[in-house]
Amino acid sequence: MIQNLIRKIQETKAPICVGLDPMINYIPDALLRRSYREFGENLEGVADAVWNFNKEIIDHTYDLVPAYKPQIAMYEQFGIEGLKVYEKTVRYCQEKDRIVIGDAKRGDIGSTSAAYATAHLGRLKVRGRTYKAFHTEFVTVNPYLGTDGVKPFVDVCKAEDAGIFVLVKTSNPSSGEFQDRLIDGRPLYEEVARKVVEWGSDCKDGRYSNVGAVVGATYPEIFVTMRKLMPDTYFLVPGYGAQGGTAKDLKACFNEDGLGAVVNSSRGIIAAYRQEKYERFGAEHFAEASRQAVIDMAADINSVL
Amino acid sequence: MIQNLIRKIQETKAPICVGLDPMINYIPDALLRRSYREFGENLEGVADAVWNFNKEIIDHTYDLVPAYKPQIAMYEQFGIEGLKVYEKTVRYCQEKDRIVIGDAKRGDIGSTSAAYATAHLGRLKVRGRTYKAFHTEFVTVNPYLGTDGVKPFVDVCKAEDAGIFVLVKTSNPSSGEFQDRLIDGRPLYEEVARKVVEWGSDCKDGRYSNVGAVVGATYPEIFVTMRKLMPDTYFLVPGYGAQGGTAKDLKACFNEDGLGAVVNSSRGIIAAYRQEKYERFGAEHFAEASRQAVIDMAADINSVL
Repeated sequence: MIQNLIRKIQETKAPICVGLDPMINYIPDALLRRSYREFGENLEGVADAVWNFNKEIIDHTYDLVPAYKPQIAMYEQFGIEGLKVYEKTVRYCQEKDRIVIGDAKRGDIGSTSAAYATAHLGRLKVRGRTYKAFHTEFVTVNPYLGTDGVKPFVDVCKAEDAGIFVLVKTSNPSSGEFQDRLIDGRPLYEEVARKVVEWGSDCKDGRYSNVGAVVGATYPEIFVTMRKLMPDTYFLVPGYGAQGGTAKDLKACFNEDGLGAVVNSSRGIIAAYRQEKYERFGAEHFAEASRQAVIDMAADINSVL
Repeated sequence: MIQNLIRKIQETKAPICVGLDPMINYIPDALLRRSYREFGENLEGVADAVWNFNKEIIDHTYDLVPAYKPQIAMYEQFGIEGLKVYEKTVRYCQEKDRIVIGDAKRGDIGSTSAAYATAHLGRLKVRGRTYKAFHTEFVTVNPYLGTDGVKPFVDVCKAEDAGIFVLVKTSNPSSGEFQDRLIDGRPLYEEVARKVVEWGSDCKDGRYSNVGAVVGATYPEIFVTMRKLMPDTYFLVPGYGAQGGTAKDLKACFNEDGLGAVVNSSRGIIAAYRQEKYERFGAEHFAEASRQAVIDMAADINSVL
């Protein structure tokens, strides 16, 4: 699966993905009003507005980017109606032949992780027939429970040619609280990085493994070590733009072949029209603002590669 | 909220909760066949069978237990149809005036954790009106991202009088891989325990905090330390029974007041009819077997208190 992502990165010349993390206040009023008129001022109405918002952004950007990363929490907060839109958004990206990274950060004890792996990457067997639940190409995984919490995801990656990105060092301000603590003189995230390599070692697809790592753009000082510890691991890099990560910082995330990382931006793309830089588009042309923000982001990152 | 749980524990004299983690192979064939006839051999059919299975177990046990703990992964694997049954199961337990601990192990960066907290404990505002998504009394939370990943849950606990149980030491075989690693001579799970106390310190409801801790029954050697580090923290203790934890071991999880812990059993209760001990009930009386298993478990644990 990682080769599919790489191929699309090379085709689009954009090692980036668009985070589809719609907050209600990102959605232009006109869109909200339209959905409220049709479905009422309720969870169904909001969910419909989120869907229309996503669809327009995808329509305006899919020829430019290899992948989308919907954050499932932003849909889960609207309950069943929200998760239907998550599913619809995933399918729509796939219809456009884009890769979907489900940002779910799941992880549990063995049998439970197996259920999550089925939900997000696999298939469920019901009397001989198989069914897919949310089915994305990749999903993000939390490593706190150790190998038996991650292994069921890796098993499904092998069976289904899917992929995961395991949280190694996250982009948030307090990520260091546990992740940076020293164990035998080395930070915990390095221990996790070593495990990511181990988990991914028999799950290769070309040079790179289908078991990738999440490494936050907000901590550039660790990129060189991360790259050295995980030379054949693909990085999913959140935190560019709105969270503070810059292209110059990101150079060290990539290998000498220009591959090895896919940089995510959510707010910076989907809510671009609210930035001064793109306000000329206006709320009604929010998706065109997103398109321009994607073009600018790809150029910014390519400038350092 | 923790006082509501305590009150129900005292009323039922049972410091236990029933894990509603239905695997397809736990569900008696007759139940599956009935649902398949009505809805087809598909995700809707399976989900309906899960619902009927849960309902019968709840009907046969709700007068005996204070709480249920549905594991959301087991529903998520069936997609939207499964999550509808999760929601229905939660509501049904609440109609029976029972406490629901949503076992979701969510956790992310700040704004995303806020969305999860809304989804599982809070309410969403849509133009003045508020709506609930999955809304359980408690939810389990993964601490790997640190304070800003947990704080949004604590904020909702305060606003809504809800509660969380933060993963400190999980019950699975490889939980020690990261959780036991020494930081300044102390295992990581002790660092997390200290943080749980800090996060819960201004979220008290009587003696105990609404911010609880998950401490696995499979590592009894750490209970004394855990109790000492977190004297006013309620423990959610998975791993009793099927995973190997015994009542004798569990004594140290409780305070001198007989409170401080709620012990979960999933498979051991809901699939009791498949054990030799309860096979006399037969598959058609699976819920009566569950009832007997609850009675036996409560007696077992009370025998050491």
